[in-house]
Amino acid sequence: MSAIFAETRPDEASAVVEAPRRERKRVVVIGAGFAGIAAARALRHADVDVALIDRRNHHIFQPLLYQVATAVLSPAEIAAPIRQLEVKQRNLSVLLAEVTGVDVATRTIEASSPGVGVRKIAYDYMVIATGARPSYFGHDEFAQFAPGLKNLSDAETIRAKILGAFELAATTEDESERARQMTFVLVGAGPTGVELAASLAQMVRVTLRGNFRRIDPAQASIILLDAGKRVLPSFAESLSAKVTRRLTKLGVKVLTGVKVETVDAEGVVAGGNRIPSATVLWTAGVAASPIPKMLGTKTDRAGRALVDPFLEVADAPGVFVVGDAASVFQNEHPVPGVAQAAIQQGHYVGRLIARELKGRKVKRPFRYFDRGNMAVVGKNYAVLERGWVRTSGFLTWLVWALVHILALPQLQNRLRVQRQWLWSYVTGQRSSRLIPEPPRGAGSGPDLPRAP
Amino acid sequence: MSAIFAETRPDEASAVVEAPRRERKRVVVIGAGFAGIAAARALRHADVDVALIDRRNHHIFQPLLYQVATAVLSPAEIAAPIRQLEVKQRNLSVLLAEVTGVDVATRTIEASSPGVGVRKIAYDYMVIATGARPSYFGHDEFAQFAPGLKNLSDAETIRAKILGAFELAATTEDESERARQMTFVLVGAGPTGVELAASLAQMVRVTLRGNFRRIDPAQASIILLDAGKRVLPSFAESLSAKVTRRLTKLGVKVLTGVKVETVDAEGVVAGGNRIPSATVLWTAGVAASPIPKMLGTKTDRAGRALVDPFLEVADAPGVFVVGDAASVFQNEHPVPGVAQAAIQQGHYVGRLIARELKGRKVKRPFRYFDRGNMAVVGKNYAVLERGWVRTSGFLTWLVWALVHILALPQLQNRLRVQRQWLWSYVTGQRSSRLIPEPPRGAGSGPDLPRAP
Repeated sequence: MSAIFAETRPDEASAVVEAPRRERKRVVVIGAGFAGIAAARALRHADVDVALIDRRNHHIFQPLLYQVATAVLSPAEIAAPIRQLEVKQRNLSVLLAEVTGVDVATRTIEASSPGVGVRKIAYDYMVIATGARPSYFGHDEFAQFAPGLKNLSDAETIRAKILGAFELAATTEDESERARQMTFVLVGAGPTGVELAASLAQMVRVTLRGNFRRIDPAQASIILLDAGKRVLPSFAESLSAKVTRRLTKLGVKVLTGVKVETVDAEGVVAGGNRIPSATVLWTAGVAASPIPKMLGTKTDRAGRALVDPFLEVADAPGVFVVGDAASVFQNEHPVPGVAQAAIQQGHYVGRLIARELKGRKVKRPFRYFDRGNMAVVGKNYAVLERGWVRTSGFLTWLVWALVHILALPQLQNRLRVQRQWLWSYVTGQRSSRLIPEPPRGAGSGPDLPRAP
Repeated sequence: MSAIFAETRPDEASAVVEAPRRERKRVVVIGAGFAGIAAARALRHADVDVALIDRRNHHIFQPLLYQVATAVLSPAEIAAPIRQLEVKQRNLSVLLAEVTGVDVATRTIEASSPGVGVRKIAYDYMVIATGARPSYFGHDEFAQFAPGLKNLSDAETIRAKILGAFELAATTEDESERARQMTFVLVGAGPTGVELAASLAQMVRVTLRGNFRRIDPAQASIILLDAGKRVLPSFAESLSAKVTRRLTKLGVKVLTGVKVETVDAEGVVAGGNRIPSATVLWTAGVAASPIPKMLGTKTDRAGRALVDPFLEVADAPGVFVVGDAASVFQNEHPVPGVAQAAIQQGHYVGRLIARELKGRKVKRPFRYFDRGNMAVVGKNYAVLERGWVRTSGFLTWLVWALVHILALPQLQNRLRVQRQWLWSYVTGQRSSRLIPEPPRGAGSGPDLPRAP
């Protein structure tokens, strides 16, 4: 169909490619998360070539990432191949590449694909939707000890850490080491920290019951730390209090107003006390990906691009930034870094570009419409806040489950997640308890028998 | 419950631990594949402590591994946590460790767990069920270019190679490189090679249809090579001929009587011709894991332990070897390295030990009962051979599907695989098309937006 990348030969990579004579304009969308896909989809009827670039071949449904980390779901169950969009949208091309440079003066980006090398791609419009990554607030040395949870590889790392800790606790003869292996510290009591802590609490009490003769997994200590005054600060205080009670009931120790000073191989130091822990998880801060900085325009302290009310970058015409990569304010409050905001921003920018292409000049600034916030706390319990409506409990949990099932990309993922949930709800089992095996050649241990 | 590993403190690891005063004898089973689990399960009513050691935390159902490699199934769908056996079997303890040494004189093994170090474990009986790994027939340098398919990490490596090849083919401007990326060579036309080639052929024609604007995945070239005269040499010639026809119909080029001379980064040289290929998969030979060699007793050329008719090692009383780690003959024919043989051997040895523990002296040698062989060739087609019965076609394929669903460990896996098959049968879609993402910090490309 469209030879959208055709003029960008790798052998010309060192020279800037002049935007060649093209019949159609080109929109380059970087990042196939919620915001990027919404932007690309909003352009589906526009007379334009859309290039969707991501360094992964799959979109992930981030709100359920914590369930991959706690072995409820398999990675593939919350992922959808981005490439499938080419089937659905004729003016769209997918490119698996990593963006390594942006030049707003010549309107080109530099993208690198493994095995193919660096190429330059010209754009007329660019939508940066590259999201966020964990931020250690200037303590990047914590990263190696306390993984964040932003992508599937993070989720699998955390899963292996959690399952591996129980294996080591069951193996060691040293009492204090056993206690350290059975202590899990989560830094940051926002939605991810709360949901992860509750899911972990459920796992140690129910799923792993009877799995270890030498230890009782239910004795594990799960500590949720936050420097702030309460859990879920984006929710009403009454809901925070309810969630704290619920977490305590599940066996999670909630410590608010406690600042983490150090994270190292032995555990954390928080509020002046050392907590020995083999599994420290970072659910605290996020910073933007490095792409907005490449524009050379203004960013905030977290690396998010400052944009005008139309989500466009002031000194880079035609460049829009959406989702967690952008700093967007509304009524002097920042628009939160949640999926619905990302989707709304992506959709808005897609529509805006489509209208511009049709020659329409009048445009309205972006308005965020808050559909409400939810957080789930283990089995049968969730909290919801929407305007003045605040609910919690079992019915809210059902709503949470329904909303998340329906929001999943692809019908098949909806069916799979639904069944996995039903299964683990009824049996308490979790079906993805895999610790990845060492790569071939790393050791000489047992191999499994041969297939017939 | 039982403190089965209690006397083997890590600080004593450097000294040989004398088998201490124990009330019950101990059977150490190394490897939790088909054979090892069958042996452990056969001891469930015996008055003995069973220690099941594996370096992985999960058992895998090898016959469906090729479907993980071709994105039909997710890794967790064919895996079951070994630890769950502790719930079912009270005299069994699971240890996640890698066996690094065996001393038959002192009846101890050396096992290493990450973070805990090396320990010695005493045994009264030992069952070695450590399986096989790919064999490159003295050309270990091929391994880095042509992965084998023996475990989940292999399957995920192959999946990423296949999906990545199409991405690169769609990205490159170089015609010959594109052709190389779209050429897949499978070395070895046994059941794994045949099943993998057929599944791959189905994928490129159906699943990936329309996914790429710049290439037509159906134009991919899939070549199945074997030095032997025919595909599936363990089946009757008539079935081999049928399978060859079926493969050809699916678009697989079958080249028999062709020896592979070289595998390198550019492809393979076979029968004097170079075939440029970015994806060479090794489905040819297997050799035993290194554990049998540690016994210091006799092994065959593939490293399999030579055992007596009771599957015991002649110079190492109390040591049994089962499954692919053993060289077992029956009527002067080797017992094949298939799941049913492994299960029968494991079960036999477990029963034998249980009887010995009860003081029974009379024992019968192992007899392999061949329940028949099956191989599946894409959608709707399988071949079956059992004694003089030879069938092929759609009904045989249904039998194949039924047998494999029923043989899966855990009810949940049966349900999940069944649904995945139904889904991909009806829609042609494959739901696990994930290329693993680069680990955090490896690059600075786009990150996905934040979860709400």
